[in-house]
Amino acid sequence: MKIVAIREKTFPIASPIRNAVIDFSKMTLSAVAVVTDAVRDGRPVVGYGFNSNGRYGQGALLRERFIPRVLEADPRTLLDETAENLDPRRIWDCAMRNEKPGGHGERSVAVGTLDMAVWDAVAKIARKPLYRLLAERYGDGRVDETVFVYAAGGYYYPGKDHAQLHDEMKRYLDRGYTVVKMKIGGASLDEDLRRIEAVLEVVGKGSALAVDANGRFDLPTALSYGRALSRYGLFWYEEAGDPLDYELQAQLAREYPGPLATGEDRVRGQVRPVPRPPAHRRGVRRFVAPCAKHEGSVH
Amino acid sequence: MKIVAIREKTFPIASPIRNAVIDFSKMTLSAVAVVTDAVRDGRPVVGYGFNSNGRYGQGALLRERFIPRVLEADPRTLLDETAENLDPRRIWDCAMRNEKPGGHGERSVAVGTLDMAVWDAVAKIARKPLYRLLAERYGDGRVDETVFVYAAGGYYYPGKDHAQLHDEMKRYLDRGYTVVKMKIGGASLDEDLRRIEAVLEVVGKGSALAVDANGRFDLPTALSYGRALSRYGLFWYEEAGDPLDYELQAQLAREYPGPLATGEDRVRGQVRPVPRPPAHRRGVRRFVAPCAKHEGSVH
Repeated sequence: MKIVAIREKTFPIASPIRNAVIDFSKMTLSAVAVVTDAVRDGRPVVGYGFNSNGRYGQGALLRERFIPRVLEADPRTLLDETAENLDPRRIWDCAMRNEKPGGHGERSVAVGTLDMAVWDAVAKIARKPLYRLLAERYGDGRVDETVFVYAAGGYYYPGKDHAQLHDEMKRYLDRGYTVVKMKIGGASLDEDLRRIEAVLEVVGKGSALAVDANGRFDLPTALSYGRALSRYGLFWYEEAGDPLDYELQAQLAREYPGPLATGEDRVRGQVRPVPRPPAHRRGVRRFVAPCAKHEGSVH
Repeated sequence: MKIVAIREKTFPIASPIRNAVIDFSKMTLSAVAVVTDAVRDGRPVVGYGFNSNGRYGQGALLRERFIPRVLEADPRTLLDETAENLDPRRIWDCAMRNEKPGGHGERSVAVGTLDMAVWDAVAKIARKPLYRLLAERYGDGRVDETVFVYAAGGYYYPGKDHAQLHDEMKRYLDRGYTVVKMKIGGASLDEDLRRIEAVLEVVGKGSALAVDANGRFDLPTALSYGRALSRYGLFWYEEAGDPLDYELQAQLAREYPGPLATGEDRVRGQVRPVPRPPAHRRGVRRFVAPCAKHEGSVH
């Protein structure tokens, strides 16, 4: 069996929303299809991947570098030991050949979207859901039949007032979400606190609300927000500063008493740098938020 | 005055050379021209920038995101306070609008190449060499009329033996270079040591030779190379491990007695994470190797 084609298409996902750093009015995403000659239920298996919003589509990188490398490789070198399915790790290594180490960004989006499509094909060829296949390969085979999800919203957009924010969050609760997330850092601290309090009126308690600064803050701002936020007992305080600023993250962890989240920009093999909490703060929950598109890899 | 056009062209710089991680047979680069309506010596000023080898041309990113943002901005917002020249920092901020923090890579190449072209235009409009303009703006106005340079070569390529490596290095010395650099990590340690000794025969002393592993090594390999290299008293040992693996760099710094170099992948505002040497090693020279194309900024 082999990959017979890999297709990418970039789609606009323009929207007037914004977070603390970017507005999404020109945002795009990439959808990738990995077409194989394996036949299941009478049709060739096609794996699909896409990157969600924030990093733009990466069609040019895929077409110029990552897709050609995979298509030019001897197809046998991309198979697992059974030779009846693709090997995502070998395909990843092939796609990343001749890439300078470090400096991930657009590249991890491109290769992560491709990797997602490969895994989708692998699961379809194996005739089982991906979550089951991953549990069998990398866990003890037991799977969680339910999974915790939260509603990530609360963006800034023109004309949005507290009443609209209130309504948006109520809709999430009505759909069954138990935790919601909202953006902070795109307004003054005072205004953000008013927005948070408007949301708390709906969700009832801080532990049902996460906030996300999208990497906007310098250390003093991260700490002042931290001091102001600490009274609410929030679900988490996400990406206060630049994701590569480990020192900021470590200092914030020493002062902010609640859970923190970061890690969306870690790349495969680089989860280690997430700062360890100091001894007196062990046991405080810390959330690492890996992301297949930013990490460049599903596993 | 204003920018009237920004052009990008991607050129192949294919070559059979390789370092420890990548071969350059499909390498490309971007050349960028920033065309202004300022006239000097009877002709419109055009600033030029390019990215050298290693990270591929970034024409698509420039055309899809960075160039349109600059061209769509009100030209007055891109000028310095005299309104008679461009302001590189404002142009950089404009180009980077709506970019998610963290995860630099291709993006820093794209915006760094654009930034280089902007600075070239700024210096031409100011009718002085860029080194003088930078010294006046950011230093005390005094400039170094001479600057240390080294010859970065010693790549691996098919059929290259020690005699050829020897000849290559001799040509650098003949041209007046006092320090040369060679690649390591693309062969076994034993073979690399033989290559190093072949070069030392030409350059005479370890302090005239730098070695570069291009981020290839894990910690045990970085340390074994370090132990083997320490006998030579080299000019520096560059990018032993992944450039984002600060822990590896810090551990290597504790064990390797000579100068180390890293930092090619630091992005503007992120030079801080370079590990500080432990107390007993202060005073050992450390080289930070910023790069306009990888940093995304000339200043």
